[in-house]
Amino acid sequence: MTLSNVWKITLEIGQQPPEFQIHLNDLNGNDFNSIFRDNLPMFQLELRDETSRGQFSPCFVSAVPGSFYGRLFAANTLHFIHSSYSLMWISKIPKEVELLNKDNIYMASASPQQVLDAYYNQFRIDFSTFLRCRSEEIVSGGRMVLTVLGRRGHEDACREGCCYIWEVLALVLKQMVAEGLIEEEKLHSFNIPIYTPSPREVEEEVEKEGSFGINHLETSEISWADLSNEFRSTDEPDWHYVSRGVRAVSEPLLSEHFGGFVMDQIFEKYSEILHDCSTKEPETKFVNVTVSVTRN
Amino acid sequence: MTLSNVWKITLEIGQQPPEFQIHLNDLNGNDFNSIFRDNLPMFQLELRDETSRGQFSPCFVSAVPGSFYGRLFAANTLHFIHSSYSLMWISKIPKEVELLNKDNIYMASASPQQVLDAYYNQFRIDFSTFLRCRSEEIVSGGRMVLTVLGRRGHEDACREGCCYIWEVLALVLKQMVAEGLIEEEKLHSFNIPIYTPSPREVEEEVEKEGSFGINHLETSEISWADLSNEFRSTDEPDWHYVSRGVRAVSEPLLSEHFGGFVMDQIFEKYSEILHDCSTKEPETKFVNVTVSVTRN
Repeated sequence: MTLSNVWKITLEIGQQPPEFQIHLNDLNGNDFNSIFRDNLPMFQLELRDETSRGQFSPCFVSAVPGSFYGRLFAANTLHFIHSSYSLMWISKIPKEVELLNKDNIYMASASPQQVLDAYYNQFRIDFSTFLRCRSEEIVSGGRMVLTVLGRRGHEDACREGCCYIWEVLALVLKQMVAEGLIEEEKLHSFNIPIYTPSPREVEEEVEKEGSFGINHLETSEISWADLSNEFRSTDEPDWHYVSRGVRAVSEPLLSEHFGGFVMDQIFEKYSEILHDCSTKEPETKFVNVTVSVTRN
Repeated sequence: MTLSNVWKITLEIGQQPPEFQIHLNDLNGNDFNSIFRDNLPMFQLELRDETSRGQFSPCFVSAVPGSFYGRLFAANTLHFIHSSYSLMWISKIPKEVELLNKDNIYMASASPQQVLDAYYNQFRIDFSTFLRCRSEEIVSGGRMVLTVLGRRGHEDACREGCCYIWEVLALVLKQMVAEGLIEEEKLHSFNIPIYTPSPREVEEEVEKEGSFGINHLETSEISWADLSNEFRSTDEPDWHYVSRGVRAVSEPLLSEHFGGFVMDQIFEKYSEILHDCSTKEPETKFVNVTVSVTRN
């Protein structure tokens, strides 16, 4: 839609319409095959028709496997970089979190201060690595727009909406330990590798790294239950939809750590708790931090 | 190996060593996942160590799905293009071949002249489309090296080594029709979409299209049985190895046309015939046509 509008506007103002080369990045283990087979051909056909370009779509797509906490592209080859809902994933669980956060699986209100500090520190290391790698790949004057799951205020790293979904998950896992379905040791060594930064924390890292100037920085809020998309049927209750969403995001991690055979049980219990709480608990809101920057 | 040598030589002569961005192309249905998961990480680690580059490999790899008989990349973005053993695959079976080549599955010695002409014509259309698409994507002065399964002489389109493997396959399919394992109608509508050009045919198309100048054009010969690679055990007889190779190349086509359930039977019979003939038949030789060109 955006691409065909850009195409049409350049034609209207008498310029040569551009060709777009888009690179999709994800980890090496991602399923690129199904994107290529199921989604890409239709996307390119539609775009070809929208731009009336005749034989070929003006948009060329490639897949680039690898971690964005490393270099992914040759130097000075990108003009625009977009990352959506990815940079809250930190590259690893810090040692201190493994040792000191046994009864929790995230930055819970009961987690010691060292755990919160270690999470924040890992985010700073990872985010500045991301900025440095991208600064080498993007041309001077190139733009970057990043949206990350974050938090509104600078304090309260463990008091905003996103934490609630992990506290419920911790509750489920503790129940399962009590029922002998999961080993206690396994629960102790499990932590979610996510840090949700505040706008000020994002701003500080961009300024410290120094390659990019900030054009715009904002936060926005969304209730997960309000997110509607093609995968949600109109009569699906909120608690069920949220539970499915948490499963989609966390199953790969949980499954690797606890084994695939307990996944159904974990998410049945998860749905039950969400259902029981859905009239009592405040709505689960997510905070997005979005920053738009330009390469110096 | 080549990349790390280029890297070392530029260092030795005091130049800034280059970064490489490699795009791998195949059809949308190819299994890119296993390349990304099983091969790429090791390749990049080895190259990183060979070039002693510290944190990252200097070679970035992406996958570009789509037919090379269409545009794949934005204009003026490539410096070097290499295609190996791909351009003999034509984009479709011409109507005339479907209608007139019922008892054969390829350009057999018994095929009528119109069948041979139609195959050649389709090759010319496809190869010139390939040249036009690449000429838009490559920068001026950019180089391209193409190796295609071909034939040595300009005549005898159906008398060189490559045809033998398809004549044996046709024999197997006819036996299976006689035994009632395959419908005759299915065999009549099956043809292998390959055309193996002569050096002169390649040269003519490059000159007619006009975007590239030829630096070098050569033919070379290889016996399939002499090809050794990591997938061949030392005591595997030639006929078995050739049969496996033909299966790897043709199974997707055969399976789609005749159904997967007859594949084992087809290739058991195929191996038997090759085994019986291996002392009588001349060695199966393949001819490669290689052309090196520069974008004007």
